[in-house]
Amino acid sequence: MATTPNPIHSWFLGPKAENDLLLKELIDFAFEAHVDWRRSYHPEDASPISASTQRSVAAISQRADLRREFNALLQRLRESVPYFHPRYNAEMVSDTAVAAQAAYFAAMLHNPNNACSDVAPVTAALEMEVGQQLATMIGYDTARSWGHLTAGGTIANLESVWIARNLLYHPVAAMLATRALGVDISVELPDNSTAPLSSLDSWQLLNIRPAASLELWEKLWQSASGPVVESALRAYSLQSFGYQDYGRHLFREFGDQVRTAVVMAPGTIHCSWKRVVSSLGIGTNQLVMIPVTAECRLDPDALWQQIVTLRGKRIPIMACITTCGTSGQGAIYDLRRVVEVRARAESELGVSFHIHSDATYGGYAASLTRAPDGTRQSPPTVREQCGLGLWPSDDWITSVFALASADSVSIDPHKLGYVPYPAGALLLKDRRARELASTRPPYYRDGEPIEGEHPLTADPILEGSKPGAAAAAVWMSHRTIPLHSAGNGRLVSSTMRAARKLHALLGSSDFEPFKVVRFPEPDLNIVCFLIHHRSLLNLTALNQLNEHIYRELSPSPGMSAPYMISRIRLTSPNYDGAIDPLLASLGEEGRAYKRHIAEGLTVLRVTLMNPFSEDAEGEHLAGLIEAVRTAAMNFVP
Amino acid sequence: MATTPNPIHSWFLGPKAENDLLLKELIDFAFEAHVDWRRSYHPEDASPISASTQRSVAAISQRADLRREFNALLQRLRESVPYFHPRYNAEMVSDTAVAAQAAYFAAMLHNPNNACSDVAPVTAALEMEVGQQLATMIGYDTARSWGHLTAGGTIANLESVWIARNLLYHPVAAMLATRALGVDISVELPDNSTAPLSSLDSWQLLNIRPAASLELWEKLWQSASGPVVESALRAYSLQSFGYQDYGRHLFREFGDQVRTAVVMAPGTIHCSWKRVVSSLGIGTNQLVMIPVTAECRLDPDALWQQIVTLRGKRIPIMACITTCGTSGQGAIYDLRRVVEVRARAESELGVSFHIHSDATYGGYAASLTRAPDGTRQSPPTVREQCGLGLWPSDDWITSVFALASADSVSIDPHKLGYVPYPAGALLLKDRRARELASTRPPYYRDGEPIEGEHPLTADPILEGSKPGAAAAAVWMSHRTIPLHSAGNGRLVSSTMRAARKLHALLGSSDFEPFKVVRFPEPDLNIVCFLIHHRSLLNLTALNQLNEHIYRELSPSPGMSAPYMISRIRLTSPNYDGAIDPLLASLGEEGRAYKRHIAEGLTVLRVTLMNPFSEDAEGEHLAGLIEAVRTAAMNFVP
Repeated sequence: MATTPNPIHSWFLGPKAENDLLLKELIDFAFEAHVDWRRSYHPEDASPISASTQRSVAAISQRADLRREFNALLQRLRESVPYFHPRYNAEMVSDTAVAAQAAYFAAMLHNPNNACSDVAPVTAALEMEVGQQLATMIGYDTARSWGHLTAGGTIANLESVWIARNLLYHPVAAMLATRALGVDISVELPDNSTAPLSSLDSWQLLNIRPAASLELWEKLWQSASGPVVESALRAYSLQSFGYQDYGRHLFREFGDQVRTAVVMAPGTIHCSWKRVVSSLGIGTNQLVMIPVTAECRLDPDALWQQIVTLRGKRIPIMACITTCGTSGQGAIYDLRRVVEVRARAESELGVSFHIHSDATYGGYAASLTRAPDGTRQSPPTVREQCGLGLWPSDDWITSVFALASADSVSIDPHKLGYVPYPAGALLLKDRRARELASTRPPYYRDGEPIEGEHPLTADPILEGSKPGAAAAAVWMSHRTIPLHSAGNGRLVSSTMRAARKLHALLGSSDFEPFKVVRFPEPDLNIVCFLIHHRSLLNLTALNQLNEHIYRELSPSPGMSAPYMISRIRLTSPNYDGAIDPLLASLGEEGRAYKRHIAEGLTVLRVTLMNPFSEDAEGEHLAGLIEAVRTAAMNFVP
Repeated sequence: MATTPNPIHSWFLGPKAENDLLLKELIDFAFEAHVDWRRSYHPEDASPISASTQRSVAAISQRADLRREFNALLQRLRESVPYFHPRYNAEMVSDTAVAAQAAYFAAMLHNPNNACSDVAPVTAALEMEVGQQLATMIGYDTARSWGHLTAGGTIANLESVWIARNLLYHPVAAMLATRALGVDISVELPDNSTAPLSSLDSWQLLNIRPAASLELWEKLWQSASGPVVESALRAYSLQSFGYQDYGRHLFREFGDQVRTAVVMAPGTIHCSWKRVVSSLGIGTNQLVMIPVTAECRLDPDALWQQIVTLRGKRIPIMACITTCGTSGQGAIYDLRRVVEVRARAESELGVSFHIHSDATYGGYAASLTRAPDGTRQSPPTVREQCGLGLWPSDDWITSVFALASADSVSIDPHKLGYVPYPAGALLLKDRRARELASTRPPYYRDGEPIEGEHPLTADPILEGSKPGAAAAAVWMSHRTIPLHSAGNGRLVSSTMRAARKLHALLGSSDFEPFKVVRFPEPDLNIVCFLIHHRSLLNLTALNQLNEHIYRELSPSPGMSAPYMISRIRLTSPNYDGAIDPLLASLGEEGRAYKRHIAEGLTVLRVTLMNPFSEDAEGEHLAGLIEAVRTAAMNFVP
């Protein structure tokens, strides 16, 4: 349990702005430092703004206009949703750390653009540090990995599959490049054997392990001069050809045997993934959904079967997306299973693919597994700090450790890092993969790329401008709420305790004449359930009840809802594994509901990420349950 | 010329933080309002943070740690690049408006996520207003257009071509959908004639005007029920199939006659466009570059010839990208010419395509063409306000008016809108185009989409999270520095005057023993030139001299450079039209240089977007020229 006094009490402004003096002091400090900085830059220069101009009637009137307009904005902002308060438990947003708020403000006055390290020397360096901190937290080797900040998780996810897409066809480009260069190189196959690249058929070329695919680059550099290799590779890359011409090219080379590649993902992935794959030209049809279990976890047997089926059809797999902390339920177990299944697929089926973990929500939970000295904490130590008995399980902890095995990880400081928007991040296990989405060649000397001249951060993958202020905010937050068990881990475990408390309270509360149907205990800090009444004769009526409760407990003008929660619509067949046991618990009625599951099942969702949810001594949790009950009672079918 | 007192003097913090009291007052005001807002939300709730905790030794020590870390950050930030100062004229960044800084801070404390209007009711509404303001400024009909904010110009540009890509194949999908539904509809051809959709061949289907393509939707809705039409369209869309399967599909349907579509663009487009097209699966090979003139303007005759050539090969054109304010030189003339050429191509060749204007830099120049009452200003009035005699020309003004004819426009408030990062925007002339990048169907009632239930803003195209604070900053800036000639137009014209003054000074200054070779007078506020010395025997030496000057006048630790400028490398053949007259002015030597132009030509670039560049009464402009001369003198070949 948290020691006394709880440092969380100093980290946030607080539900009653308890730490207003602290934040104000930092803001004033930043402002004064900025003013001083401006005045100390070429103090000999004349000012273009004269004091007499400032005193003029016109200037006074302009300032009065500005104050009036600003006041109007502040009035409008009073209608904002109170994310900061433990009464708000709807979406993945909460209060943000004082350190991050102050740092964002301080750097915003400078307004650096981190897409270009030349012109943002300070905040680009901070971004590099942040990338290394996140990589260290999840277990990547910082000598080989790379991390950078993005506008958010969707952009980071897009970058990951953009790279995976180009990586899939990289061995094809390498093979065609060797042919053009009149050389041959060896390549490691998924079963660890080695073969000449020229001897592979199209199926083998599209099933090279990500690491082995990246090694083709260096092998090629050894066979010819860097620029020659680079231009040969570029001439045969998907990045240059584009999908349409590449398809024709593959057809000419291999006939009709190269099938369209797919992206696998459990049914629980965030809806934004459809945008990601379709923008990349992959197509939503190519999203192959893997069934999930009652706990909304990917079913590893189903994954294996899917891989076997795809192999039978000779359909290559571009990537498997998994989620660490699903947006619906916070489930975190998938990655380790996918890593295990891929290892088996490589050795038994000769099938390999890129693994990406969408840890935009749950990635910061890895902070719980790190001791302040940076070492991995043992499962008993993690459990002792969480104070939840046998929770989290060994399986939970090794699932979080598995982030180190993903080829790429996206992680959002603006979620469980408690930093203001916009702050997403993409981490690559092997930084060479970054080149696959690059449109400019690496720098060379004697045929070798020069690491130092290719900045490790702030090199744009997609975005051409990024606020350096976001990097400063994340950096400052990590400095004061470090990525270990006594820092950010304390926040995560606190929210996990609150979630488990709510889950238990839901189970023990009297909802008569309603019945609460809970999801299994949460992996993280999101509690899902639905409210049922035996008079509800069909699924539509059941959904109407829960949609009604959600609407009653949603932000509305005046913010009159006593508590705010969210809801998700579980769709079939993606969520069948989770839907079936929920409905089964309702017996005969549940079976009747199931017949119309095409319309989906609405489930209420409580995201307990507020740092003060635990502190409320169950008061707000009980209040929330009472609010749900009251909203249910008000339902008129 | 500007009236006295110049309101610009009240709009910015200023090079010596002259308006520190004003910004401080607004920041304090925002802070107090925020604290009051928090405290007035459920005042009856107990505080989780006790005063005794706050007074504890541990809490005092935690706060001391935070102050120390924050102080370290502020110290590091002192090494920032002084964008705010007229001595900085390198990249497209400058001081930001006080109104925007204060509004960003105020809204950041609330931390709304504008990707979801449900949870960001205030700032999502502000974003909608901002989108309409920008659309109004460029002349879009706000009843039909749509605008939203993005993380930056690259994301907005990506969204535009994502839509154009899907729009190109939309008539194919519509034709296949009508066949599946057993109906037929009519379609308008580029020559204004009408034909049954089923009668068109693949070439015709890929040359439907954007507006006519969008109308197919409504025609289909009239022929069958909304959801049925939607699912039929979706079944045949590129968005669903993905590029690989769509290629196969097109082949089955039309044989090998459908060629890979291209994106046309003048050689001056920003390098980020390669990232945009390759991420979308289009391929950098499909970027067809159009030659430019001496002024770095697209050559309309070359464009026409290119279209004729592409038509001869039956290569469809997905889009033509133009730039309003090229990042290299600020050229703004291209769009009107492309609009004219497209009209001719439609009537004479039956060829049509989407036109996108990358107005990320120059879009705000349209504010100069608006009177405070919102009407278009006449060219003489614009010229009178600019105070530059015959400048800007009628051609300049109609080129800016042409923004209203582009199918989509990207425009960055964080450039000439003087708002902090991140603030880009995408504007669509016809909001129905947005659906083409959507992965969820529009809402229906009686087979018709319901506009009101599909929010006009904050509906994610790509990003799943966006800072509402950015919307507040842009909104507040537009309220106090409105998008007309007396507001933002004043800023733009001021920087244009400074640029023309610098251009003239460069021409009249004595650079002996060096010679200055200037670009033609700037369209906007970017001045490009190179320094030559007759001892430089080859192009490499010439480039070395100018790279040396650039390095001497670049940000470096300690910011010791007296002035900061940037440089661009003009590449051949993209920039041949501009390179040739520059080198020709050097006579015989220039012809010798030209033989090695494959290495590119380095040109110095001065971006005069600081609002106080003009005020300095030529002092800083003369200083800059002297700094260039001194740097040249220090050059050791």
